[in-house]
Amino acid sequence: MFSKLTTQVLDRSKQIEYITKLMSCRRYSMNFEEPKGPCMITEIPGPKSKELMKQLDNVYNIGATQYLVNYDKSAGNYIVDADENILLDTYTQISTMPLGYNHPALLNVFKNEQNLRSLINRPALGVYPGTDWPKRMENILKQVSPKLPKITPMMCGACSNENAIKTAFIAYRSRERNNKDFTDAEKKSSILNQPPGCPDLSILSFKGAFHGRTIATLSCTHSMAIHKLDIPSFSQWPIATFPMYKYPLEDNRRENEKIDGKCLEEVEDLMVKHKRHFPIAGIIIEPIQSEGGDNHASPEFFQNLQKLCKKYGAALIIDEVQTGCGPTGKFWCHEHFNLPHPPDIMTFSKKMQMAGFFHSDEITVKLPSRIFNTWMGDPGKTILLEAIIDVINTQNLLDQVNKSGRRLYDGLEQLQNEFPDMLHSLRGKGTFIAINAKGTDLRNQIIMQLKRNGVQSGSCGTEAIRLRPALIFKEHHADIYLDIMRKVIRELSKERKRKY
Amino acid sequence: MFSKLTTQVLDRSKQIEYITKLMSCRRYSMNFEEPKGPCMITEIPGPKSKELMKQLDNVYNIGATQYLVNYDKSAGNYIVDADENILLDTYTQISTMPLGYNHPALLNVFKNEQNLRSLINRPALGVYPGTDWPKRMENILKQVSPKLPKITPMMCGACSNENAIKTAFIAYRSRERNNKDFTDAEKKSSILNQPPGCPDLSILSFKGAFHGRTIATLSCTHSMAIHKLDIPSFSQWPIATFPMYKYPLEDNRRENEKIDGKCLEEVEDLMVKHKRHFPIAGIIIEPIQSEGGDNHASPEFFQNLQKLCKKYGAALIIDEVQTGCGPTGKFWCHEHFNLPHPPDIMTFSKKMQMAGFFHSDEITVKLPSRIFNTWMGDPGKTILLEAIIDVINTQNLLDQVNKSGRRLYDGLEQLQNEFPDMLHSLRGKGTFIAINAKGTDLRNQIIMQLKRNGVQSGSCGTEAIRLRPALIFKEHHADIYLDIMRKVIRELSKERKRKY
Repeated sequence: MFSKLTTQVLDRSKQIEYITKLMSCRRYSMNFEEPKGPCMITEIPGPKSKELMKQLDNVYNIGATQYLVNYDKSAGNYIVDADENILLDTYTQISTMPLGYNHPALLNVFKNEQNLRSLINRPALGVYPGTDWPKRMENILKQVSPKLPKITPMMCGACSNENAIKTAFIAYRSRERNNKDFTDAEKKSSILNQPPGCPDLSILSFKGAFHGRTIATLSCTHSMAIHKLDIPSFSQWPIATFPMYKYPLEDNRRENEKIDGKCLEEVEDLMVKHKRHFPIAGIIIEPIQSEGGDNHASPEFFQNLQKLCKKYGAALIIDEVQTGCGPTGKFWCHEHFNLPHPPDIMTFSKKMQMAGFFHSDEITVKLPSRIFNTWMGDPGKTILLEAIIDVINTQNLLDQVNKSGRRLYDGLEQLQNEFPDMLHSLRGKGTFIAINAKGTDLRNQIIMQLKRNGVQSGSCGTEAIRLRPALIFKEHHADIYLDIMRKVIRELSKERKRKY
Repeated sequence: MFSKLTTQVLDRSKQIEYITKLMSCRRYSMNFEEPKGPCMITEIPGPKSKELMKQLDNVYNIGATQYLVNYDKSAGNYIVDADENILLDTYTQISTMPLGYNHPALLNVFKNEQNLRSLINRPALGVYPGTDWPKRMENILKQVSPKLPKITPMMCGACSNENAIKTAFIAYRSRERNNKDFTDAEKKSSILNQPPGCPDLSILSFKGAFHGRTIATLSCTHSMAIHKLDIPSFSQWPIATFPMYKYPLEDNRRENEKIDGKCLEEVEDLMVKHKRHFPIAGIIIEPIQSEGGDNHASPEFFQNLQKLCKKYGAALIIDEVQTGCGPTGKFWCHEHFNLPHPPDIMTFSKKMQMAGFFHSDEITVKLPSRIFNTWMGDPGKTILLEAIIDVINTQNLLDQVNKSGRRLYDGLEQLQNEFPDMLHSLRGKGTFIAINAKGTDLRNQIIMQLKRNGVQSGSCGTEAIRLRPALIFKEHHADIYLDIMRKVIRELSKERKRKY
């Protein structure tokens, strides 16, 4: 019943303690039902995780590995680690699990023989799609597209952004070329990476942004130096300042409006300045800067940004890789902004399982083989997405997100008011919430203590604790989270008072 | 029994013809057994494919779409289209299907409950790998790594190459930095895409190369202008000439040796020239340039290229995305070259289902979060790869590839000798074979006629017909291919004689 490993790595008295705790935790996690709450047996990483990490260290860099997971035992909002610790998961695999672990609807998907076959007959979808493919694409467009008529499927967020950027470049040059053929000079120079075939165009991105780690998306990413160091970059692509608001918003309205104005002015200055020198073919932006610290901007900021895009002929690319698929309480976060027009391109991945982008008719590339790769997506992920959308709709999960989000927000607000020397700048939509700690060290301590107490959470930026629970996170999960958060903050507060 | 669509799009006499042909073809494709041979009912694309393509055209660009496929009915080496035409597939979804369609061993994989769960509990593998993950990675390294101790999993070929290139850049700068910390200047400048943090380094690639369509890998890709037009590029990255041999090799040995020498000299010149100006951190090369036209280079060329890499401190990145996983008769194509050392990095994808790269200990990036993304691979694909490797081993499929390759090569050689005004430059290893037609038009005609006669084949470069069958392609499949190829060539030859 208990593995050899356990008896190897723990001495006898610890074994007894471990087994007692384990028996008590196991009551929580029988039969793939969701556990009643967190249950901690060992430190994290525990002895089994440590042993497996040692093994994994032989095959690749495990610097970012926190612990190993028993995915068979994880259920709903709870992740169960190799040592059978049960944690409430508010981070959900970097915000990628819309329905938590082992959701019964998803478990059924590949018990269907046709769906199963789609996993092992993986087509080159751009060339030989399956007969079911047009209907699947139509369904996804009809059900979740943000009023954009076209879809280009991909496999990950970075590739979606790479191809969104390429689409913007092609649209820009096609407009300049005005339906004329490519010139011979363009064809010849392009093969050798030179203009005019490979033109000196640019994409405008924002300080604090994260759009991926492939080399071109990394040129649009400015959240952390460690992601970018030593990697050559498109050094001429312009970078504008993202609004950084003062919180609480209701007390800082005028000041934040000024911040919006200044940032928009900077964007317009860059667009003018770049008209001749690396013209801006597109602006890429997250509706909420996620990796960069959960930085929000106002609907007015986005509305005016879209106006600037239209004025200067740049495509507006909204990157909903982290914000999309419901966590903000609307299916897409930018729906909060009441934009007069849909964006030209909107990219998605993560919770959606499949990745890609929706786009307008006008920006759709006309010639084949330009926005293209071998697989062009993955039917297995698309089938999962269909099942996910179905669960979101039939179980009204966006309502759930708004209710649980409200509970989380109110609880954190109270905590922030009680501990103003530790917590500040609470912000969020739906359950897509963040709160800042005073300083990076304190933030890291809070996250470590949360984990010790059975809550898996995530960080972003320099000070933020970010919440990224699944869409099935309910009010009672919020209460468990808030209880543990309160306990952690109270203890750290006492400790700090002792120290100073 | 016959869908509404069929009766809609065909008139009555054609209906009867269609149904008669269909009944005759269906004898071939019952019960998921491999059909006995190709069987053509309609033109390609047939009426059902056309109808579905019209539907698909509403949701994305279908310029590259050839026809729609009934993946449930496709089996082994035969692809069955929407109109139930049965084609012998020598292109296998752009060379991605190692075991053909609906292989029984793969169909079983996800009937295992634990494997099934891995599909719906997709981890962020860099942070929270499953308890089974270390063993899976170890197994793959042990079974197929080309003597490289480390693996970095990814999801597609382009991302594998992006991260291989990043790894080379980081290794180059780390060596220069000599274990010192990043400077403040590096950290600050990197966030803004500027040197010294984002240094002016380069990757050397070859004319005719294909390494992907993300923007940085596109800077290393020089096979077709249409892939590159309008996309900004790293214009300072050097491009060397790839050897372009005269065939048959045995009659042109001295000349081809000279070509090798000239190309290597050019590489060395570029490495010297770039020492101060965009130093070359790595050389990326395919063992056989695939998209660029199935261009082969000699073992001596690769051995000397490796020497140059070592002499000038550049990483040798071998891109086995298309050549890997057996089609050349060895698991990795570069094993044909007897390199004195393994390459620093070798990338893979396609037939492997999972993607990524193997690499040396020295080049492995030490700090976390530099070579990283959300998913870092996909357990579902890894589990498929394990099953694929198992079938390759137990059924000695590399032997099969060599036997079938020999049969194909001999048959094509005979044909080339008979029709020297139409075919030339036969070349290949295993079943990874290509033959050139005299001119692009003729090549395209041959491929179209092959398709009409029930053979799906692929093209590459300007003149080449490329063979990319599955590893389960046997001698009798080769015979069917050769019979149809002979028929097509003979008919086209007669037609040409009538014309001129």
